[in-house]
Amino acid sequence: MHKYAIGVVGASGYSGIELCRVLAAHPGVDVRFVASDRWEGVTVRAKTGIGGSVGGLSYVPHAQAVGAAHGCAAVLLATPAEASLELAPQLLERGVKVIDLSGAFRLADGSAYPRHYGFEHRHPALLAHAVYGLPEIEDRKAIAAARLVANPGCYPTAAALALVPLLRAGLLADEAIVVDAASGVSGAGRQASEAYSFCEVADDVRPYKVLRHQHTPEIAQSLARGAGKPVRVTFTPHLLPIKRGILSTASARLAPGARAAALAETLRAAYRDEPLVEVLDAPEQVAIARVAGTARASVAVAVAEAGFDPGRVVVVSAIDNLLKGAASQAVQNLNLVLGLPERMALEPAPGVSP
Amino acid sequence: MHKYAIGVVGASGYSGIELCRVLAAHPGVDVRFVASDRWEGVTVRAKTGIGGSVGGLSYVPHAQAVGAAHGCAAVLLATPAEASLELAPQLLERGVKVIDLSGAFRLADGSAYPRHYGFEHRHPALLAHAVYGLPEIEDRKAIAAARLVANPGCYPTAAALALVPLLRAGLLADEAIVVDAASGVSGAGRQASEAYSFCEVADDVRPYKVLRHQHTPEIAQSLARGAGKPVRVTFTPHLLPIKRGILSTASARLAPGARAAALAETLRAAYRDEPLVEVLDAPEQVAIARVAGTARASVAVAVAEAGFDPGRVVVVSAIDNLLKGAASQAVQNLNLVLGLPERMALEPAPGVSP
Amino acid sequence: MHKYAIGVVGASGYSGIELCRVLAAHPGVDVRFVASDRWEGVTVRAKTGIGGSVGGLSYVPHAQAVGAAHGCAAVLLATPAEASLELAPQLLERGVKVIDLSGAFRLADGSAYPRHYGFEHRHPALLAHAVYGLPEIEDRKAIAAARLVANPGCYPTAAALALVPLLRAGLLADEAIVVDAASGVSGAGRQASEAYSFCEVADDVRPYKVLRHQHTPEIAQSLARGAGKPVRVTFTPHLLPIKRGILSTASARLAPGARAAALAETLRAAYRDEPLVEVLDAPEQVAIARVAGTARASVAVAVAEAGFDPGRVVVVSAIDNLLKGAASQAVQNLNLVLGLPERMALEPAPGVSP
Amino acid sequence: MHKYAIGVVGASGYSGIELCRVLAAHPGVDVRFVASDRWEGVTVRAKTGIGGSVGGLSYVPHAQAVGAAHGCAAVLLATPAEASLELAPQLLERGVKVIDLSGAFRLADGSAYPRHYGFEHRHPALLAHAVYGLPEIEDRKAIAAARLVANPGCYPTAAALALVPLLRAGLLADEAIVVDAASGVSGAGRQASEAYSFCEVADDVRPYKVLRHQHTPEIAQSLARGAGKPVRVTFTPHLLPIKRGILSTASARLAPGARAAALAETLRAAYRDEPLVEVLDAPEQVAIARVAGTARASVAVAVAEAGFDPGRVVVVSAIDNLLKGAASQAVQNLNLVLGLPERMALEPAPGVSP
Repeated sequence: MHKYAIGVVGASGYSGIELCRVLAAHPGVDVRFVASDRWEGVTVRAKTGIGGSVGGLSYVPHAQAVGAAHGCAAVLLATPAEASLELAPQLLERGVKVIDLSGAFRLADGSAYPRHYGFEHRHPALLAHAVYGLPEIEDRKAIAAARLVANPGCYPTAAALALVPLLRAGLLADEAIVVDAASGVSGAGRQASEAYSFCEVADDVRPYKVLRHQHTPEIAQSLARGAGKPVRVTFTPHLLPIKRGILSTASARLAPGARAAALAETLRAAYRDEPLVEVLDAPEQVAIARVAGTARASVAVAVAEAGFDPGRVVVVSAIDNLLKGAASQAVQNLNLVLGLPERMALEPAPGVSP
Repeated sequence: MHKYAIGVVGASGYSGIELCRVLAAHPGVDVRFVASDRWEGVTVRAKTGIGGSVGGLSYVPHAQAVGAAHGCAAVLLATPAEASLELAPQLLERGVKVIDLSGAFRLADGSAYPRHYGFEHRHPALLAHAVYGLPEIEDRKAIAAARLVANPGCYPTAAALALVPLLRAGLLADEAIVVDAASGVSGAGRQASEAYSFCEVADDVRPYKVLRHQHTPEIAQSLARGAGKPVRVTFTPHLLPIKRGILSTASARLAPGARAAALAETLRAAYRDEPLVEVLDAPEQVAIARVAGTARASVAVAVAEAGFDPGRVVVVSAIDNLLKGAASQAVQNLNLVLGLPERMALEPAPGVSP
Repeated sequence: MHKYAIGVVGASGYSGIELCRVLAAHPGVDVRFVASDRWEGVTVRAKTGIGGSVGGLSYVPHAQAVGAAHGCAAVLLATPAEASLELAPQLLERGVKVIDLSGAFRLADGSAYPRHYGFEHRHPALLAHAVYGLPEIEDRKAIAAARLVANPGCYPTAAALALVPLLRAGLLADEAIVVDAASGVSGAGRQASEAYSFCEVADDVRPYKVLRHQHTPEIAQSLARGAGKPVRVTFTPHLLPIKRGILSTASARLAPGARAAALAETLRAAYRDEPLVEVLDAPEQVAIARVAGTARASVAVAVAEAGFDPGRVVVVSAIDNLLKGAASQAVQNLNLVLGLPERMALEPAPGVSP
Repeated sequence: MHKYAIGVVGASGYSGIELCRVLAAHPGVDVRFVASDRWEGVTVRAKTGIGGSVGGLSYVPHAQAVGAAHGCAAVLLATPAEASLELAPQLLERGVKVIDLSGAFRLADGSAYPRHYGFEHRHPALLAHAVYGLPEIEDRKAIAAARLVANPGCYPTAAALALVPLLRAGLLADEAIVVDAASGVSGAGRQASEAYSFCEVADDVRPYKVLRHQHTPEIAQSLARGAGKPVRVTFTPHLLPIKRGILSTASARLAPGARAAALAETLRAAYRDEPLVEVLDAPEQVAIARVAGTARASVAVAVAEAGFDPGRVVVVSAIDNLLKGAASQAVQNLNLVLGLPERMALEPAPGVSP
């Protein structure tokens, strides 16, 4: 089988390691290089235990990434947004396609970057070309044709999978939506800080970046695309004392005149042919443990037909923040871009249990 | 110092053990008996390591509780609602005051019990006499004069402390409120079930009893009292992989014309003289670890003045579900009923860290 | 590629689920049936999220397992010892090879069963035929030729991998060996008991079955085979508040006259051609997190050349109790028995991180 | 009641916070100052939630500690060994007694410091005056008379409580002892390092400082004092994914001719009048959760009368590393030095549960 040459930059972060793990078992690609300043010169196997030919690679410094990408069909960037902003144009110029896991190319409106990401976007033209890579929601043909794919954020993936089909079907009222979500600590990346030390995180749960998380504009953008108009939305993230996984609880209101049963029917129809999104019968079945270690998302909806807030819709979704929220979704996009089967190397879901 | 004779029923549950722990260091009471069918005949010290005279007591069976209460000024019931419904009238008849930690006497509207608790309320007259014991919110004189105190539920305590002062001040719009909250596993009580086994709970987070948790009517009742009119509210609880603590994130809307700054000002004013409720500057400071093992609650508010949902109010609160959400609040109520200083045995906050 | 028909009994236990997960991605086998009384009639996918053809199977009751095995080349038993004792002979009679994950056939000396397993062994003749399936230590040809493979216990696997090569090389003195080991909670299997509830296990560590764990005779048997004579050994297991993984710390003494450096050299030589056992430079590198979710073991040795106990040898090893300590080792044995490459479906190590 | 003026240096470390918490409820002392460079200028209440007069103190920098100690009867040093070495002589010169929680004054043999602590001991004369403060084992009169108390290390406390009474009674053979112990992460102190980040510690267990932990000479010193002669001992510490608590499993051999029953009898006799050391019937009852959050230790012994290593003695002990292993033991010593009841502020055991 032909193997496409690819590379991974930012390969020592938690998402980068997951990329290496998935790609080590991928029959359609040949990982030519992995870049990491932190672990330069050491082998992947020594640091992570990953085997195969990927395990035998030694990390090269980021400064060598563009050179190492010569001859590659695509490169995956698991780098901070600023690094992606610098690397992506250089790779694209050399004809190398880019799957970027950072937020650098996710927002269509470049003017949102200073407020939400803290920098002026220096490549607004690229924003117009970047395709937002959430295959189950967006247009797969556009992703497949893209030279630059903006891989979605973890929270936005969980929120969009839960809400976009319902908005598209016109089932949600024009009332503000609340997304309360919680993530395992790996969502913060590798940390050498007291705030993320074991003793400060274990046995605790707390909100963070309230009303100012950088994923809020990305969520609002997805919901607006789904609704065909702006959607009022508040997103509150929380830090969980677990390593991986996101649970999102979204509250909305049933559109006047809509049937309650239409909510679940619409989700089932939307994901009927999507093996990586599973629609469950009840929100109580949605759980981080069900999806941790897998490329899958779970989603379920309930609606209050009576009680203290009739018409309330609660949609719960769960993903592994490092996989469907980062690495495995990036491989879905990579497969699409390379013309490979979309779920190659992602099924049957690996997973861990208990 | 005079010591009031008291007793504890349901003393082997997690809340019951916390009651014993707090009362073991209480200079104003003399614990005469502790009742538990599970641990009948064994000493408190042997099962829990609690010292002092409480440690030396042997658990008596529940069937002996009413008899053992002879001569007691008050008895604390850390029993399931059905058991409390049976014990409370017998104790009250004998002139023994009752602090009930179950939900048996919390809802003023007895007709709500079949749906939310699964039983017909056999003592509706007692509902009229029971005083809801949330001292920082309700009328302390009424609690002090009560013969039967309904100790609030854990989630309702967290929600009411966050929202009632704002509702009273008219600062929240007439829009539905969303309360997304999460609890440590001890909230489910002692469990010999696979669903609460370590392997099924660890590394996981999931919602439960969505749109049908029995604390919903209690929350709605508190909010309605605060607002002076019915309040639409949806409450979604989640199970956390930690032993103790509740974090509640409530979303509401600023009343038209209200000043954003009035929210924090109102919370600070409401709790200025309440040492057991701490108002923090920002929601990000509210954390389960800050209150776990203590009798305190933390609360903070933020409001969106611009962005994707202007006017959104987010109020975050945290308590220890077994203390401010159960045992230490019961001791506050006990102290009030006995005429003792309200925070006796509860300050300085014991707490644990890290 | 030809696919061998196989089946799994006890498929809803934690080891059984791991078997299904590994086998779902195994290109050389066709899983014909999965048996579980607990989940009878439900699909594997519904309960576990496992995809592929294994995911589509519905659990059949154990009573149908022998019938369902008709035409199978082999069956894996992830059942309690008593159930294995009953099933194995029936399967063997019908020409179906058996890989048994229980302790039913591990001890060569049948008279040890009443004391350590609590039952008289009813099939002593089978004990003579059973082959102990620790491929990196035992004779692979004997495993490949076996009709009944006794898959090793989790603790004995960790202990034998650490100590047997050193005993074989005569590097350990004739002094008693201490094996202190600790396991994640999944080692106890699915539990609906208060003792294994989250609140009783989290934040705790404790020893259990001190001086009387049923794995002790199995460890002693492996060490004696390695040494060529009886070895005095004490094994103390501990329960860890994590879901999976075993860490074993073995203390022994350097044989008089032996070189300290020979210890590490011997381990490296023993596992030079064993991709599933990795010899690390120092015990501090051995960690449960390095092997959890993988089919691999890690091992490292240190020796005191001076200090308070010169000559002390400390050998640390780690495995995933559900994989190298159960399911993946069973698949190694299955592959050997079926004549397939030993590590088929086990490389590159799947793993999870962080 | 007269209150002794005291101070705490290193008050923002985990042990220092526990000191503040215990002292906040101590009726016999008046905490005059708390010193911490990290939190200079902030109040104790703001950082820790501790109430009372201690909560109202603002942290002063370490450079002001000696001056602030003017007029104090005693100062507790919860500082690194190097800092204690510098502060203790200055305080002693000014007539202030010192309880030092570091290892700076624990080893009678000053020549051991370079190897085990990495520095030349600049005050060997003070080593001769320092009294090792393990009240249940050492001479309480000597502690009470001391001007400088070396508060024991956490692991050495757990090991000495388990073994010293047995050595004193001559019940252990002249064979090397193995101490395998494990600690919660708070034992490493506050950490802003990747190695102690949540994602690197959670779900993992690993050994550290194998054959070279600085507590080894302290353990050897205690055991030698107990035995009246040098004792060969190997100590292997492990890092646990919990915040607090130590479990120690010590393996020794029954002295020839000694009765097995004498082991438990001796422990019970040794601790009959020691409310802070509880002797349990079986090692399986010893658990970190039983002592976490309390000033108590648990200990139990078992002996193999037959089996694979007859005569093997296993002694298990558990403490809270921050309390009996640090802060509460320091308060025991403080009370002794000040002539107060030894367990003032330490009973009934505070504790947390679940």
